[in-house]
Amino acid sequence: MDLTALRNANPEHWAKAAAIRTLTLDAVAAANSGHSGMPMGMADVATVLFEKHLKFDASAPKWPDRDRFILSAGHGSMLIYSLLYLTGYEQVTLDEIKNFRQLGAKTAGHPENFLLDGVETTTGPLGQGIANAVGFAMAEEIQRAHYGKKVVDHYTYVIAGDGCLMEGVSQEAITLAGRHELSKLIVFWDNNNITIDGTVDIADRTDQVRRFTASGWHVIEIDGHDPKAIDAAIVQAKASKKPSMIACKTHIALGHAAQDTSKGHGALTDAEQLKAAKEAYGWPYGPFEIPAEVKAAWEAIGARGAADRAAWEERFAQLSERKQAEFNRAYAFEVPKKLAGAIRALKKQISEDQPKLATRASSEKVLNVVNPIMTETVGGSADLTGSNNTKSADMGVFLPENRKGRYIHYGIREHGMAAAMNGMALHGGIRPYGGTFMAFTDYARPSMRLAALMKIPSVFVMTHDSIGLGEDGPTHQPVEHLAISRATPNTYVFRPADTVETAEAWELALTFKDSPSVLSLTRQGVPTVRTQHKAKNLTAQGAYVLAEAEGKRQAILIATGSEVSLAMEAKAMLEAEGIGTRVVSMPCMELFAERDEAYRKKVLPAGPVRVGIEAAVRAGGWDRWLLGERGREAKAGFIGMSGFGASAPAGELYKHFGITAEATVAKVKELLG
Amino acid sequence: MDLTALRNANPEHWAKAAAIRTLTLDAVAAANSGHSGMPMGMADVATVLFEKHLKFDASAPKWPDRDRFILSAGHGSMLIYSLLYLTGYEQVTLDEIKNFRQLGAKTAGHPENFLLDGVETTTGPLGQGIANAVGFAMAEEIQRAHYGKKVVDHYTYVIAGDGCLMEGVSQEAITLAGRHELSKLIVFWDNNNITIDGTVDIADRTDQVRRFTASGWHVIEIDGHDPKAIDAAIVQAKASKKPSMIACKTHIALGHAAQDTSKGHGALTDAEQLKAAKEAYGWPYGPFEIPAEVKAAWEAIGARGAADRAAWEERFAQLSERKQAEFNRAYAFEVPKKLAGAIRALKKQISEDQPKLATRASSEKVLNVVNPIMTETVGGSADLTGSNNTKSADMGVFLPENRKGRYIHYGIREHGMAAAMNGMALHGGIRPYGGTFMAFTDYARPSMRLAALMKIPSVFVMTHDSIGLGEDGPTHQPVEHLAISRATPNTYVFRPADTVETAEAWELALTFKDSPSVLSLTRQGVPTVRTQHKAKNLTAQGAYVLAEAEGKRQAILIATGSEVSLAMEAKAMLEAEGIGTRVVSMPCMELFAERDEAYRKKVLPAGPVRVGIEAAVRAGGWDRWLLGERGREAKAGFIGMSGFGASAPAGELYKHFGITAEATVAKVKELLG
Repeated sequence: MDLTALRNANPEHWAKAAAIRTLTLDAVAAANSGHSGMPMGMADVATVLFEKHLKFDASAPKWPDRDRFILSAGHGSMLIYSLLYLTGYEQVTLDEIKNFRQLGAKTAGHPENFLLDGVETTTGPLGQGIANAVGFAMAEEIQRAHYGKKVVDHYTYVIAGDGCLMEGVSQEAITLAGRHELSKLIVFWDNNNITIDGTVDIADRTDQVRRFTASGWHVIEIDGHDPKAIDAAIVQAKASKKPSMIACKTHIALGHAAQDTSKGHGALTDAEQLKAAKEAYGWPYGPFEIPAEVKAAWEAIGARGAADRAAWEERFAQLSERKQAEFNRAYAFEVPKKLAGAIRALKKQISEDQPKLATRASSEKVLNVVNPIMTETVGGSADLTGSNNTKSADMGVFLPENRKGRYIHYGIREHGMAAAMNGMALHGGIRPYGGTFMAFTDYARPSMRLAALMKIPSVFVMTHDSIGLGEDGPTHQPVEHLAISRATPNTYVFRPADTVETAEAWELALTFKDSPSVLSLTRQGVPTVRTQHKAKNLTAQGAYVLAEAEGKRQAILIATGSEVSLAMEAKAMLEAEGIGTRVVSMPCMELFAERDEAYRKKVLPAGPVRVGIEAAVRAGGWDRWLLGERGREAKAGFIGMSGFGASAPAGELYKHFGITAEATVAKVKELLG
Repeated sequence: MDLTALRNANPEHWAKAAAIRTLTLDAVAAANSGHSGMPMGMADVATVLFEKHLKFDASAPKWPDRDRFILSAGHGSMLIYSLLYLTGYEQVTLDEIKNFRQLGAKTAGHPENFLLDGVETTTGPLGQGIANAVGFAMAEEIQRAHYGKKVVDHYTYVIAGDGCLMEGVSQEAITLAGRHELSKLIVFWDNNNITIDGTVDIADRTDQVRRFTASGWHVIEIDGHDPKAIDAAIVQAKASKKPSMIACKTHIALGHAAQDTSKGHGALTDAEQLKAAKEAYGWPYGPFEIPAEVKAAWEAIGARGAADRAAWEERFAQLSERKQAEFNRAYAFEVPKKLAGAIRALKKQISEDQPKLATRASSEKVLNVVNPIMTETVGGSADLTGSNNTKSADMGVFLPENRKGRYIHYGIREHGMAAAMNGMALHGGIRPYGGTFMAFTDYARPSMRLAALMKIPSVFVMTHDSIGLGEDGPTHQPVEHLAISRATPNTYVFRPADTVETAEAWELALTFKDSPSVLSLTRQGVPTVRTQHKAKNLTAQGAYVLAEAEGKRQAILIATGSEVSLAMEAKAMLEAEGIGTRVVSMPCMELFAERDEAYRKKVLPAGPVRVGIEAAVRAGGWDRWLLGERGREAKAGFIGMSGFGASAPAGELYKHFGITAEATVAKVKELLG
């Protein structure tokens, strides 16, 4: 590359971009780790985007109508940190840049949304950013339709690398965005032809232009180091009625000895080479040094949106008070005051009617109550709407011709769905939920984990939660998936026993502000076990005494979900034999673990034998409640699954795998000796 | 559809296809569940494929050089069951068809490879079949290069639906196949425009032809009900030098009242409609009744390959005895006799040299010993070759110009990699392993679970297995992934402490015939703890006493992987204070759980306090060993992670999260009171 020609052609642009490149080089060298090449390659694109197009105000990073900028290629985190520092975001001081990748720094190895405003989403696991972006763009469309263009009108920009585009989730994202004509989504592809193992073509020869156009995208190909071309492409993309992909031909680690090589992807820390790169840039400054006029130019960019923001605030103030309150409430993840009463009323009705219902159908009942009063919910399913019972009666379908639709047919894209849900929650103003079969937790896992890490309240509606789904067999029968979600930090797993607990679980999930929830729901009908109405949300305690022993308390049965009614049957049989038996319903282990020991001890006192019942593997957290918490190995047993399921009618499977009231009774007697 | 015209145009073909359609209708009706429409829509394609092209011999389902037929749209399982029954596979009797989806039947809801020969891979979770197929086709290429075209020369055929093509993993599969010019891979797309939620276009408008050609596929578009067109397309596809996709325009549930509707996807059980459909087919026979001449015609198809097979056996017999033995050994998943000695020699050397090595580097050392003597291994990485240390010195890179290459650059496609690995193992003759960062278990999960369900010995090499990876931060730091794999049935998770245990873990993983393994390996260096050579594979016991208490045994430290050396440090500190401390290394919980109680009791006797140490969540199976197995709550503690990690140098993170020898010592003393 002839850097001198590039520099001379656009000297002011060059200096701004060089600031990104040199901060990157210096920070990576100081940390002795990180990824230098990507920010160096995409500095020109980012500079033009921030200078000429991105609507933002560095002094108000949370301005709801800002354009969103997503660095899907999250390993290039120094790109975003440089931009935030240069444009004057208060959180990103020069010290933060110098502390790149150090303990306690906000400038973590990969950009973390919970550490820094200006980082819209945590990226690093490839493909997530571009898939989140689909949710951001959907959220913008839905809110624009709801609140009007005067208060919601912004773009979502993404920088994605070859890695993002190779990940399967990017295909789900691209096809979803194309179908929904998300025209305000603009993706820059950092087309540098380099991955860690070598040039891209050792593993992929896809014609990306053809691939994107196949799914309804507008594609523009440019030289990613030509500021005029970058600007023109963005202008064109903004005007397109389709989502746009701007293929930016770039040189990874531009100007460094490692340019255009796999080495350039990683940490470029060699002092001599660093010096030579700075010389090639015409950059005679010390480490972390940015000349005042360059910093000032960047800060002017950071302040460019202030007037826009002020104007927006005026427009926002013209909304009705109700609308303003609704908007602010949704952004704050607050529930409407009406919710608690509506849930209580439903619970009361159910305790009276005592229906036998699959909890997935219970969930639909709850959504029929919730969605009309929570206009910020956006539901959907990965092509299992009728099975997941995720569409409430009031919900229209989100489509280009109906942007007010709050129900999304995600297609057979569990991963893309979960990532888009996260994007909506991160965008703000939306509370997303989405459904699939619980076994397909596996497909959605990368995004489910990120919801937990990113502290966002996405709700994953996982139906068909055990062998109780019957004939579809072991591929569709989760046995380890409760364990998977329970082992994940900052994730609440609810396995409600009936409609009342389902309503309580939803109420809790909708109240969370910084934790995702997993609802584990049955395919098969279960009786109402909460036959006495309690206004209080008992599920909030995690576990509680559903039925007390009648005689002397000799046994405690602890069960979840569909197995609670089975525990009640076993209790009746045991009591008939004079064995006093308490039944504990445990819809949420995480919440129970958060209760104080006095409460836990009240629910699980020492003494009686304990049997856990759940149609899943014991590894799903059971040993703590059976062997720990005053339990003892010799006095504890488990009725559940120890391997994969099988294909047969549900009732036969329960018998076949020994998950029955009879087996529970036998286990209790065996433990009593 | 004018069925009469179709029938009259090709009456013999029609009758054979009608046999599939009516068996499907009858079996689904009898089961009162299942998926009728897909087999009814694709019956013509399947009939032509089996009649004119598929190389198989129903009397020898395991013939190694058969063509592979993969039903990626696994819910249409009655298609494959009908074909196996009609062509005369011994296992699929008419009773099995009648018992579709019943307990104990081989005709499970979704096709299960471990229940039926003729089912090459378990399908149902969408996209898996087409992604497995890439591995099948790679295996064929590699074996053909190795053994010659006279003994290895077959095609891999796939039927994939819209769901398969919407799943992200299909993109990974398609791009991988295109790059590698897997010309013997032929995919039929069941283009029926129907999904569960409605027509495909409510969720997707991708131009699939354009999408496939963008990644180097040959695409042919046909009417999927025209036998001549189907035949011509297959002829053309077989001749192509690229992988081929045959887009078959079909009608789901052809001829039924539910034709071309979402309802047609599911179980069509209405008796009147069933009768009407049979009438439309010109099929005056009772339930499950196939006229003798139609059955005979199908059986002739089933026998068509017998001569081919006999000829193949003659050709196979002409291979050298060494080659024959190698071929048969690999197909039987037997290890070569040399392996044990080679592993022993490496262990001995290591115990003498006592290197400090990251266990990922230890793994590379082992592979350098293993791969030259196990020609059936095929390795790879999802673009992290240098980080996963998966490429041994002797391995060439698999490419169209080097089909003998046994190392695959999978690209940034963890899921596609895992699925392809499964396909290779299922194909036979290959023992696949592949690497990525352990946190990206999440991406590979659907295929890792299926490896366990399908009982195949894929080896997942998961490096960077804790906060010990340092600065890349929480997105890259697994904390719950050991728990995830340990909770999965039929999966062995190895977390070796040093090079010796790594060699032992590999030896075990390579010996398994019907279980996958997960190797959890460090990024950071760890000292050799097995400093005394033992010929015996101690890792086979799951856990063992690494160092006995010197004084009176008051404490047992149980640790895995990188935390074993930390336990040894803590032991030294405790012994210095007169607290006799045993260190148990527990590289594989599953194997330890399989040992008899006498052995487990010897390793974990009652009495001493116990502290588990693992830089991961306690939910990864620890409570069993701490609270159970003669343990007691008041005498047990855990040193590990209770949430996500952070970005900082590894050493600082260990201190920050309190995973240190000092913290271990403090915990022991606290428990001793």
